[in-house]
Amino acid sequence: MMKSLLSIDDLDRSGIIEICDLAESFLTVTHRDIPKVPALRGKTVASVFYEESTRTRLSFETAAKRLSADVMTMNMSSSSVKKGESLRDTVQTIEAMGVDAMVIRHSGAGAPNRVATWVDLSIVNAGDGRHEHPTQALLDVYTARRHLGADLSGARIAIVGDIRRSRVARSTTKAFAQLGAKVTLVAPPTMLPDSLVGWPVVASSDFDSVLPEVDLVYLLRIQHEREDSLAFPSLREYTERYGLTRDRADRLRPEVLIMHPGPMNRGVEIAPEVAESDASVITEQVENGVAVRMAVLYHLLGSGAAVA
Amino acid sequence: MMKSLLSIDDLDRSGIIEICDLAESFLTVTHRDIPKVPALRGKTVASVFYEESTRTRLSFETAAKRLSADVMTMNMSSSSVKKGESLRDTVQTIEAMGVDAMVIRHSGAGAPNRVATWVDLSIVNAGDGRHEHPTQALLDVYTARRHLGADLSGARIAIVGDIRRSRVARSTTKAFAQLGAKVTLVAPPTMLPDSLVGWPVVASSDFDSVLPEVDLVYLLRIQHEREDSLAFPSLREYTERYGLTRDRADRLRPEVLIMHPGPMNRGVEIAPEVAESDASVITEQVENGVAVRMAVLYHLLGSGAAVA
Amino acid sequence: MMKSLLSIDDLDRSGIIEICDLAESFLTVTHRDIPKVPALRGKTVASVFYEESTRTRLSFETAAKRLSADVMTMNMSSSSVKKGESLRDTVQTIEAMGVDAMVIRHSGAGAPNRVATWVDLSIVNAGDGRHEHPTQALLDVYTARRHLGADLSGARIAIVGDIRRSRVARSTTKAFAQLGAKVTLVAPPTMLPDSLVGWPVVASSDFDSVLPEVDLVYLLRIQHEREDSLAFPSLREYTERYGLTRDRADRLRPEVLIMHPGPMNRGVEIAPEVAESDASVITEQVENGVAVRMAVLYHLLGSGAAVA
Repeated sequence: MMKSLLSIDDLDRSGIIEICDLAESFLTVTHRDIPKVPALRGKTVASVFYEESTRTRLSFETAAKRLSADVMTMNMSSSSVKKGESLRDTVQTIEAMGVDAMVIRHSGAGAPNRVATWVDLSIVNAGDGRHEHPTQALLDVYTARRHLGADLSGARIAIVGDIRRSRVARSTTKAFAQLGAKVTLVAPPTMLPDSLVGWPVVASSDFDSVLPEVDLVYLLRIQHEREDSLAFPSLREYTERYGLTRDRADRLRPEVLIMHPGPMNRGVEIAPEVAESDASVITEQVENGVAVRMAVLYHLLGSGAAVA
Repeated sequence: MMKSLLSIDDLDRSGIIEICDLAESFLTVTHRDIPKVPALRGKTVASVFYEESTRTRLSFETAAKRLSADVMTMNMSSSSVKKGESLRDTVQTIEAMGVDAMVIRHSGAGAPNRVATWVDLSIVNAGDGRHEHPTQALLDVYTARRHLGADLSGARIAIVGDIRRSRVARSTTKAFAQLGAKVTLVAPPTMLPDSLVGWPVVASSDFDSVLPEVDLVYLLRIQHEREDSLAFPSLREYTERYGLTRDRADRLRPEVLIMHPGPMNRGVEIAPEVAESDASVITEQVENGVAVRMAVLYHLLGSGAAVA
Repeated sequence: MMKSLLSIDDLDRSGIIEICDLAESFLTVTHRDIPKVPALRGKTVASVFYEESTRTRLSFETAAKRLSADVMTMNMSSSSVKKGESLRDTVQTIEAMGVDAMVIRHSGAGAPNRVATWVDLSIVNAGDGRHEHPTQALLDVYTARRHLGADLSGARIAIVGDIRRSRVARSTTKAFAQLGAKVTLVAPPTMLPDSLVGWPVVASSDFDSVLPEVDLVYLLRIQHEREDSLAFPSLREYTERYGLTRDRADRLRPEVLIMHPGPMNRGVEIAPEVAESDASVITEQVENGVAVRMAVLYHLLGSGAAVA
C-alpha cells in the first residue's frame, strides 16, 4: 500500500485507475441522505496550508469529514511561521500531536517530498510551487473518463495556458499521458517549458489550428496575482489568441469537453457563456474532487475495511 | 417549506411565530447535559463570511453543531477572493462540494439574494451591507416576547442610533411591526432614513421625550470603525443626546427592557452600569440567538423529523 | 474540584501529581487505534487566542476532540476586537453561546484571571503576557518524571534563556520546585529577573560552570520577534555564551535530559544536532502535551465518569 501521494508519478496506470474506481464508489456515498462512512473514524487529518486556498482546502476537509476523520486546520500564514520555526520542526510537532495524515500546500517545489523524509505519517501534496498537484490530476482524469469513456487511449487533449509555471499542467499532463491520451500543450512560446524533454506531449502556439483536432480543452488559470510580469503583453491580447472565447467554442465539435481547475478568470482564459455551456464540466470537476480526495485519503489511511 | 432566509420579509406574522416556537423547544435542548440533537446529521452547513464577525459566525456554527450538522468555515477575506474569482464561481464551487446550506455575510446589499439565484441550496443571510440581518430580527423578537408576552401588539419600542446605515434596524423594525408593535426610530436627522416611506414606524430626534413612553429601548451600535465620518459632531455629543446614560435609564419605568445587538461601545451608546442592570437582556439575546438560529437551520434543512 | 487553571499556583504538589497520573492514562488512549474517549461528549471548548499560536492551540484542540468535546476556534486577531469591544463583553458573549470551557491566550498578564471573574465557566490560561503558562509547566514536569523518575526531589534543573520575559520560565520553575527539584536559572544579568524574591531558585550567569551539575537542561526560546531589543549584543554572542552548542552538549553526562518548549531557533539557543540527539525529549514534550491537556480539561469539566 502506498504511504504518501507526493507526485502523480507515485501512481502507475493501474494505480490511477484504482483511485478512480474507488472515487466512483465514494461518489455514490456523497449522494446519500447521510453522505458519510465510518472508514477513517479515529484518524486525524491535518490540513497544513502555507498558501491559502479555499477551494482545495475545503475539498480535502470535506473529503476527510465524509470519511469520519477528525480534521485539524492549520493556516500557516498566521502562525509559528512568523516565529522563524523551520518547516522540519513544524511538521515534526504536528506529527507528535498524533496526526495520521498531513495535506500540505507550500510555495516551495519539493517541500512535501522533504517533509515526507522528516515524519513517519502519510503526506498528500496539495500543490507545491510550480511542481505538482497530483490530486488535481486525478480528479481531472476521473472527470474525463466519466465523459469520454474509461479508456482514454487516443483521446486528444489540449492544455492551454501558462504551462511553464503551472503545477496543474505538469501533473495533469502526466496523468492523461499515463492513460494513453495524446496531450498538446498550447501556449505562447514564453509560457511553454524551456524544453519538452520529459514531457510526454507535443506543443503548439497556435490554438486555432489545434481546436478542430481535440476531444477535450483544458484551460489553465492565468495567475496574474502571482507574477509581476505576465509573460505576455496584455490580458486582452492573451484572450484574443489563447482564450476560449465564444467564437472559438462555437468551432469545437459539440461533444468536446471543457475543463478548468478553477478559480476562473472569466473573460480572460474563458468566456462566461462558455464556462456555463453544456460542454463545460467545470463544476462537476469540483464535485468529483471531493470523491477523488476521499479515495486518496482512504487509499493512504484505510485499514482495508469495507468502504461503505 | 421555505428554502432560504434572505430578508425578514420572507416570513409573515405566522412564520415569525413558528420560528419563535421552534426556538423555544431548542432553548430547552441547549440546557440539557448533552445539548445536541441529531436533527441535521449528515448535513453540511458552510459559513461564508466576507466580513469577519466572531459573534454571528460563532452563533451560527454553534447552532449547526448542536443540530449535529457538519460545519465548514470559510474566512473569505483570506482566500480565493484575492485571486479575483467572482462571487458566483465561488458559491457554485462551494455548492459543488456538497454543502446543504450557506450562511453568508457580505458587504454588498443584496448579495445573498443574488447568490440564491445562482445555487440550489439554502441560503441564510447573516448580514448584507446596510440591507438586512433577518436572524438578528428573529432573536430580537423572540427575546422581547419572552419578557413582554407572546402578543407584542401595542408594545412600544424605541430603536435608537444610526438607523440609516443599520441593517439591524431595518430587519428588526420590520419584525416588530409584523407582530403589531409600535416602533419609534430615534436618531439625529443625519442618521434617519431619507424617507420613512416603506418603514412602518414613526421617527423622532428627541430621545428624552420618547423615553417615558416605551416598553423596550433597543440601542444600535455606533459603527465608528465602518465610516470615515460619524454623521455627528463627536462621540461625546452623541452620548449626551442619544446614549442610554445612567440618568436616562433611571427615568425608565422599572419593567422596561433594554436590548442591544452587540458588540457594545460601552460609554458611547450605552453606559456600562446600564448594560449590566436588571433591565438589560443583552446577554440573553446572545443565548437566544443560538436557539433561534437552530430553529432557522432546522426549518430550512430539517426533513420534518422530530426535533428531540 | 478545581474550576479553572489560571496559574500553576492553583495546584499544590498533590494536584500536580494527580494531573500527571491522569495524563498517563490518557497517553495510553492516544496510542489506541481509535484514540478517543467520550468523556466530554456534549461539552463545548472554545479556544480564544488573542495571540496566534499554532502549537498550543492545536494541542488544546486535539486534546478536546480526543475527549469528544466540540471545539469552537476563535482567532481573535481578526474579529470583534477591531470593533473595539471590551474583553469583558467578548467573553460574556462567548459564555452566553453555551460554551463550557474557554482556553485563552492573551498578551496581557493577568487577563485570564480577570476573565474568570466575569464569567461562570472554566478558564484555562494558555499563556498570558510574561506571566504564566501553566499547562506548559505541567507537560514539562510530566515529561521529566517519565525520564528522571516520579520523585523529582533533588533533581537538578537548569533553565536557560530570557527568564525575565518568559512566562514558561515562571510557570515551569514553580512546578519543578513544587515537586522538590532544585532549579538554577541561567541567563545574562539583563535577562534575569530584577529580584529573585518569590522565585524558589538560584541564578547564575555562567552556563559552563552549571553544566556539569545538572540532570536536565531546559532551554527557552529567544523571542527575537517580540522585542525590539534583544537585551543582548547579538544572537551570535548569545549562542556563544548561552546556547546549547554541540561542544556544551558533549560535556553533559549521557543521561542528562534536554528540553525546550518550542518553537526552537535552531542554531541560536540550541544546535540542530543537539535538538535531534538521544538526550533531547523535545518532540516527546509535544506528544505529552496533548495527554496533559486532556487531563486538565477532564479535570475541569469531567463529571467523574470513568476515563476510558
